[in-house]
Amino acid sequence: MSFAGARPIGRGKRNMDTYKTLREEAYEANLEIKRQCLAIYTWGNASSFDPEREVFAIKPSGIAYDMLKPESMMVVDLDGNIVEGSLNPSSDTKTHQVLYREFRGIRGITHTHSTYAVAWAQACRPVPVFGTTHADHCAMEIPCTEFMSPQAVKNNYELETGNLIVQTFKKGNLDPAHVNMVLVAGHGPFTWGSSAAQAVYNGAVLEETCKMALFTLALDPLAKPLPEHIIRKHWERKHGPDAYYGQR
Amino acid sequence: MSFAGARPIGRGKRNMDTYKTLREEAYEANLEIKRQCLAIYTWGNASSFDPEREVFAIKPSGIAYDMLKPESMMVVDLDGNIVEGSLNPSSDTKTHQVLYREFRGIRGITHTHSTYAVAWAQACRPVPVFGTTHADHCAMEIPCTEFMSPQAVKNNYELETGNLIVQTFKKGNLDPAHVNMVLVAGHGPFTWGSSAAQAVYNGAVLEETCKMALFTLALDPLAKPLPEHIIRKHWERKHGPDAYYGQR
Amino acid sequence: MSFAGARPIGRGKRNMDTYKTLREEAYEANLEIKRQCLAIYTWGNASSFDPEREVFAIKPSGIAYDMLKPESMMVVDLDGNIVEGSLNPSSDTKTHQVLYREFRGIRGITHTHSTYAVAWAQACRPVPVFGTTHADHCAMEIPCTEFMSPQAVKNNYELETGNLIVQTFKKGNLDPAHVNMVLVAGHGPFTWGSSAAQAVYNGAVLEETCKMALFTLALDPLAKPLPEHIIRKHWERKHGPDAYYGQR
Amino acid sequence: MSFAGARPIGRGKRNMDTYKTLREEAYEANLEIKRQCLAIYTWGNASSFDPEREVFAIKPSGIAYDMLKPESMMVVDLDGNIVEGSLNPSSDTKTHQVLYREFRGIRGITHTHSTYAVAWAQACRPVPVFGTTHADHCAMEIPCTEFMSPQAVKNNYELETGNLIVQTFKKGNLDPAHVNMVLVAGHGPFTWGSSAAQAVYNGAVLEETCKMALFTLALDPLAKPLPEHIIRKHWERKHGPDAYYGQR
Repeated sequence: MSFAGARPIGRGKRNMDTYKTLREEAYEANLEIKRQCLAIYTWGNASSFDPEREVFAIKPSGIAYDMLKPESMMVVDLDGNIVEGSLNPSSDTKTHQVLYREFRGIRGITHTHSTYAVAWAQACRPVPVFGTTHADHCAMEIPCTEFMSPQAVKNNYELETGNLIVQTFKKGNLDPAHVNMVLVAGHGPFTWGSSAAQAVYNGAVLEETCKMALFTLALDPLAKPLPEHIIRKHWERKHGPDAYYGQR
Repeated sequence: MSFAGARPIGRGKRNMDTYKTLREEAYEANLEIKRQCLAIYTWGNASSFDPEREVFAIKPSGIAYDMLKPESMMVVDLDGNIVEGSLNPSSDTKTHQVLYREFRGIRGITHTHSTYAVAWAQACRPVPVFGTTHADHCAMEIPCTEFMSPQAVKNNYELETGNLIVQTFKKGNLDPAHVNMVLVAGHGPFTWGSSAAQAVYNGAVLEETCKMALFTLALDPLAKPLPEHIIRKHWERKHGPDAYYGQR
Repeated sequence: MSFAGARPIGRGKRNMDTYKTLREEAYEANLEIKRQCLAIYTWGNASSFDPEREVFAIKPSGIAYDMLKPESMMVVDLDGNIVEGSLNPSSDTKTHQVLYREFRGIRGITHTHSTYAVAWAQACRPVPVFGTTHADHCAMEIPCTEFMSPQAVKNNYELETGNLIVQTFKKGNLDPAHVNMVLVAGHGPFTWGSSAAQAVYNGAVLEETCKMALFTLALDPLAKPLPEHIIRKHWERKHGPDAYYGQR
Repeated sequence: MSFAGARPIGRGKRNMDTYKTLREEAYEANLEIKRQCLAIYTWGNASSFDPEREVFAIKPSGIAYDMLKPESMMVVDLDGNIVEGSLNPSSDTKTHQVLYREFRGIRGITHTHSTYAVAWAQACRPVPVFGTTHADHCAMEIPCTEFMSPQAVKNNYELETGNLIVQTFKKGNLDPAHVNMVLVAGHGPFTWGSSAAQAVYNGAVLEETCKMALFTLALDPLAKPLPEHIIRKHWERKHGPDAYYGQR
């Protein structure tokens, strides 16, 4: 059925499959948002990044998780051009785009409106390291951005949301490889990681951490952060060069 | 099978089917109240409006969601006359009636006793726009009515509940096409929309918004609303003439 | 297989079936405690009363809901004698006994450790009528007993728990046919009603009411009760002689 | 198939089965952590102790509950040597080790990051006996340790966590057979009991107790503990020599 000179069948297949894994990773991560109860209806999105091709697969805008298929994921490049797919990508696509460009090394991003993380974002408070649950994942407080200026909102809101996050990290001298989460003031959480799955995981960690921190303040409005030596220890046993948590 | 002079078979069928879609929409919306955990037992009702016939289908009073069928929905006109069905309609029927009459253009209404919305209603506090979750759906605070006067309660409680909501909107110069939810002081939420399904959706949005707002105040009792330029942006990207959220 | 002079077969059957319905009602009510999430593990019990025989069927002590059968319900009389069954009845049996004896007309009782009702009981605060959700079921605040005296604890703790509830109602001039729930200070809720099923329903109503009331105070620590004319209206539309809620 | 001089087949089987029950108990307890919602992801571990062999079976580190099998449980002795299994045991293994050595008589241990217990640990507050739910299980406040010193952290963190708990009990003159739970400051709960299952049960009791206590303080920041005579009564009806709760 194939012969010399003919367009090889395999080629068509290969084209169709180019972003298959990327789309599947994004698809799975988006479903996990719902399974982890990090968003109701369509209030969250996840993307998966391919650093070689410099494209990412992301949820289409406003479509319920139950209606998604791997094929509905949109593939977008770092200039915001649609590479594959026929739907509107997430309205937050440009924020993802900026973060993939600026935070080199990350492979997945999640944005949700999870209840407790939003409460902290709406109160414009960074989340102190009150305990080891937090320190197991991040040795620093979770940063919260400032409000975006009217000019930036007018300019290009979603792209400027990315810029705002990047500026917050630059100003605070934060390493996105370490602090893999942020609260956008008045809005909600963005989290990222070494994969789309890891980004959603970090979203769930952030939500649980925010919930614990809120209840801690309910018990003691002047609660102090964990002593630095315990923070450091918990971080290092999971993430440092001498980490010994898990199977290695 | 039909011939001149005979009562066409189709007519009987047509009669039976006249409100079929309307009843099914109301039925589905009532089940969704339970699925979205907006009411326990029978503590919520939804209705679907047909603007041509000026009738709406509504839950019968005091019957558990699990026991409902599309056929149990009651069809009522805007004067409160029962057009179809043999049960007592929801005790809140007259409130729906007033809202359909006064808020032209709406096609569905939901009333629940969802926990956090009730807490705000019981505290008699309008819900400030603390974040983009709120602004995505409504660019203004969620209004809360005053308490109903003894005279109005005595006169016709459920009808006056409708009037109270309408007066609150008139006094505040609010557009029910924009602000599609209200808290009745000491009672709970009413929400509406372009369909019964949309009204329940707005009920779930309100509940989540109220939950986030309560936790925001727990973190900062003096929390300020989102700056106006961000409120405006979020509202417009979903609802304005230049909206770009979702698939269009 | 039966003949004149022999013990009629029917008699044995009748004996076996005497308390069948009563046991089944109690069994169903106990399962409903779990379904409504009013208790974890074995932390709640329900009973069903037969006013003609003056006996009630109650959960056996310390047995998980999943392990219960209708046959495991214990039948006890109003003097605390076991009439049928071979297990230890609930440790709270004497409290049920006192309430059935003193609150004539009730047919079912439920005791749970539901989270929010316990919080109010531990704070020793009666629950004000903050809204119509409360007033739909009870036109008065939910009473909270005082702490039991050392002498009463020593004498007969569970029986004195019943006495404490009865005294609280006498002192407050409360009608148990109207106020069908109470918080025992430092302990938790007891609810009752026209059947075991109704008693559990009232337990769920109380839990939801306590949750709403706690969040109301979180929003306004000085929140005032609903005006009396609205309380009265909501109570009467469900319970007064002119009640019109539900199917009649 | 077996003959004199050969290694008897039975021996191998016996070896394989030596810790079968122990591993199964630990496995079941770890699954129960998830069923009782005491930890998300891998944030909790349970172990089961064999006092004759002085070994315990414990969850492997960082493996999701859904992926566990009885065979994946690690068997460790009281010096921390791996007796059976090929994975890394829980990073908290040394804490379990110290507790089994020092708290003689206990047969199971659970550590989780359950939300409300962590909040109390992060606020560094022991949990007062606010009600009978607490007193039914423990007649004293739930202790909270101090923060670990930098030296102890550096020395051997997990082992010192065990030492910190033991010191807290010695300093407070507490009996671990009575007070079977503790909050490690800034970290979270450890609970133990007569079996691994009982240890998880105690973890769920602690979480519910912490939740109730937090809401009690929300209603009354100056809430007082239950009077001593009621605490004593509730403890004794379940645990004293004259206990009468449950089936005996």
